[in-house]
Amino acid sequence: MKIIVFHGSTRVNGNTEYLTYQAVPKEKGTHIYLRDYNVRPIIDQRHDETGFAVIKDDLKGLIDQMLSHDVIVFSTPIYWYSMSGPMKIFIDRWSQILRDSSYTHFREELSKKKVYLVAVGGDTPTIKGLPLVQQFNYICQFYNMAFGGYVIGKASKPGEIMNDKAALKQAAMLIR
Amino acid sequence: MKIIVFHGSTRVNGNTEYLTYQAVPKEKGTHIYLRDYNVRPIIDQRHDETGFAVIKDDLKGLIDQMLSHDVIVFSTPIYWYSMSGPMKIFIDRWSQILRDSSYTHFREELSKKKVYLVAVGGDTPTIKGLPLVQQFNYICQFYNMAFGGYVIGKASKPGEIMNDKAALKQAAMLIR
Amino acid sequence: MKIIVFHGSTRVNGNTEYLTYQAVPKEKGTHIYLRDYNVRPIIDQRHDETGFAVIKDDLKGLIDQMLSHDVIVFSTPIYWYSMSGPMKIFIDRWSQILRDSSYTHFREELSKKKVYLVAVGGDTPTIKGLPLVQQFNYICQFYNMAFGGYVIGKASKPGEIMNDKAALKQAAMLIR
Amino acid sequence: MKIIVFHGSTRVNGNTEYLTYQAVPKEKGTHIYLRDYNVRPIIDQRHDETGFAVIKDDLKGLIDQMLSHDVIVFSTPIYWYSMSGPMKIFIDRWSQILRDSSYTHFREELSKKKVYLVAVGGDTPTIKGLPLVQQFNYICQFYNMAFGGYVIGKASKPGEIMNDKAALKQAAMLIR
Repeated sequence: MKIIVFHGSTRVNGNTEYLTYQAVPKEKGTHIYLRDYNVRPIIDQRHDETGFAVIKDDLKGLIDQMLSHDVIVFSTPIYWYSMSGPMKIFIDRWSQILRDSSYTHFREELSKKKVYLVAVGGDTPTIKGLPLVQQFNYICQFYNMAFGGYVIGKASKPGEIMNDKAALKQAAMLIR
Repeated sequence: MKIIVFHGSTRVNGNTEYLTYQAVPKEKGTHIYLRDYNVRPIIDQRHDETGFAVIKDDLKGLIDQMLSHDVIVFSTPIYWYSMSGPMKIFIDRWSQILRDSSYTHFREELSKKKVYLVAVGGDTPTIKGLPLVQQFNYICQFYNMAFGGYVIGKASKPGEIMNDKAALKQAAMLIR
Repeated sequence: MKIIVFHGSTRVNGNTEYLTYQAVPKEKGTHIYLRDYNVRPIIDQRHDETGFAVIKDDLKGLIDQMLSHDVIVFSTPIYWYSMSGPMKIFIDRWSQILRDSSYTHFREELSKKKVYLVAVGGDTPTIKGLPLVQQFNYICQFYNMAFGGYVIGKASKPGEIMNDKAALKQAAMLIR
Repeated sequence: MKIIVFHGSTRVNGNTEYLTYQAVPKEKGTHIYLRDYNVRPIIDQRHDETGFAVIKDDLKGLIDQMLSHDVIVFSTPIYWYSMSGPMKIFIDRWSQILRDSSYTHFREELSKKKVYLVAVGGDTPTIKGLPLVQQFNYICQFYNMAFGGYVIGKASKPGEIMNDKAALKQAAMLIR
């Protein structure tokens, strides 16, 4: 079972990363820090005559990596009650991949994946983070991916996640 | 009552724009198309010793415009069950404004605003768009802004929004 | 197209009823006022050796009526952010019908129905009523019923629904 | 810290009870099994000239017990994606208590309580049970009660909750 983690945090060694490592230790699985890659925001050209323009960035490399693993973990700090910008930009671009003739297998391949979510927020995240969970669930439904579970941690200042013992424990039990 | 609309669509004259014009006609209010502006994704430096680095882009101009209006309409296509990337990037950066010594009035000024949401999606949006509505509600709560209401339209292909008579009617009645 | 409305209100001629009549006028469709019927709360005997005890109340008559219509409208005041007790009691008992040998067709028959929801609440219902909408959507999914749409009105005191012009208009357009 | 648990299950020794005992062992706290009490569904007479009719049932005894504890745990099986009928009936009647001249202290007393939720469902409860969580959160907000947290377990057949190790662990850590 090969695990890939997409880290959406824009801060190195932040609370979200720490919590995620309880679920997938650094030395296990492939850890992708989206902040280190260049992915352009989508421009919706689904209905353009010539379709999507080719964009030279790191998207396809990331997609290829994703498809070569069995389990996908999305790890994101909760920015304004939803996923971080870098993670949103990454996922938005899947719409382009869906129309890319080199990726006709994209949807079917994803349907074999199992997905987990790790999210950390500062403002009552176990309540206000629930819409985010529901959105990831809808994404999984769209691609027919199994949504294996999620952990929501509470933290704001550096290191604060250490106090959320319940979340740390949950993370450690997340992927079985 | 001065109205500003932030359009999050990346497609010109799309369904979301059309629906939004039922609520705020082009000639009424200030229409900002985020796709025409350069706003960089946030890098979370809240906890850096020196705070946020100065970023030269269009953010502050947009913020100033927002603050000079009474009513804010967020208009976004539903991309993967949440707001579009450009809108997310814009809102994420508010975290930086909150720490900017030139914007100590930011939070208080926003608390005087009334907010509306117009969203359009293709995949059962009146259900799967509800987490997005809840997230905007949480954003409003954070800033103590009044959330005046929302309209969710169903459309995917260009022009399809014309068929969602209920949403068109709702949009026309949205802002009173 | 035969329409049946289940009214969950415990007050005659309340706001929820008024709003519902905009969608389904009194003289159109079959109007069932659950408060006028005797339906016992479920006792979960799914796992008892002898199964559910026979209960002499009005449940089966209501179920038969429901199955003989094409469209089902659930009309409920929002009590503590979810459906009213009488409506909950009615729906809870469907679990018993599912195990009743006289109703082996129950689930399949329901899968042919189209469902609408009308709900009225006093405390920011267009936000705080959304979990209720999501729950009805899940019920529809379980039975593979089409969820045709919903209207949420705001009212508390008698007659107050008259002020919610947007909801009244939406209700009038709900069933097409 | 005195803890009271309201059990909404209609089955003795079911999965929900088992999970709840991990959070509050039988010998700790006061355990109320709502199925053993007679509580009538509310009839909304808030707007009647003479107000609510006096109802002779067990409601006030339960309310008095609730008010004499510091922590309230609501334990409910998920019936059709929301709380069980008996629990709904109990909470609906709080509207009557709010208007009862013997309970003018009701709202203020509740504002001192801390609330937890334990819920168990069979159909992807960690997703489809989230609206229920949001509803309890709104109830807590209304009364200004602190919502301390929740656990959602997955189980349907008797004993199945034993397999949900993560929920059992979470329950054991719920109340600190």
